[in-house]
Amino acid sequence: MEVKKEWKVMKMTVGIHIIADLYGVDPALLARVENMKEIFEGAVKYAKLSKISSDYYQFRPQGASGIILIAESHLSFHTWPEHGLATLDIYTCGDPEQAEKAYEYIVEKMKPARVDVVKMERGVSIEDEKANIEVPAKRKESVEVN
Amino acid sequence: MEVKKEWKVMKMTVGIHIIADLYGVDPALLARVENMKEIFEGAVKYAKLSKISSDYYQFRPQGASGIILIAESHLSFHTWPEHGLATLDIYTCGDPEQAEKAYEYIVEKMKPARVDVVKMERGVSIEDEKANIEVPAKRKESVEVN
Repeated sequence: MEVKKEWKVMKMTVGIHIIADLYGVDPALLARVENMKEIFEGAVKYAKLSKISSDYYQFRPQGASGIILIAESHLSFHTWPEHGLATLDIYTCGDPEQAEKAYEYIVEKMKPARVDVVKMERGVSIEDEKANIEVPAKRKESVEVN
Repeated sequence: MEVKKEWKVMKMTVGIHIIADLYGVDPALLARVENMKEIFEGAVKYAKLSKISSDYYQFRPQGASGIILIAESHLSFHTWPEHGLATLDIYTCGDPEQAEKAYEYIVEKMKPARVDVVKMERGVSIEDEKANIEVPAKRKESVEVN
């Protein structure tokens, strides 16, 4: 049996949240909820996410919102065709590659001219919090006194 | 008629997104979706947000997810009772005070020991993008050449 020599140090978090504002998107695509729905439902399948439910909304005269609850968290979009803008959230717990795959699929389909994107880890402090809880009462007290 | 002397310079954005991870929340509260639903539906009313639809999900044996689509964007939560953790998103366009009010209501009800929170402005570059579009073709060309 081979002994594994390298261990990947994993920071304990509950999930990855990709927050992206897409600019310069075709207003005709952004105007109608059915266009956005097709892209988002496609992304869920492509990234093998587990859909629980979804809600979509068509604004009048134009613009759309949608939210997909998945077992791994959620995806959402809101569009402003008058600005060529869509704001997206893709938040998954479990495998971070699933969030990235869904994001790449959506950007590929929406073809923005520019993207402002941040990737946030959610629940990053669960280990610290656990450490706080597990510190014996005496020791915790002395830490607080210091 | 009095002339207004001070003008508030408003940065053009489409909305405010409050992203919060709440630690040290009572696991009994986090375990059941009906507890979380009551808090979030209460927040929507308290902040006078316009609910379009909502979806809630009870995980087995414990843990909950929920998402409320509002005319102003959305609210969502996901809970991990085993970590005393809830991750929240409150994203509203229009009056930023509404997002803050909803957030304060929720934190007041959930009584976390600690919160990691960031407030993001979404769609911050719509003015720049508009500027790009409105720059006359000639001038834009020369800017690109430089």
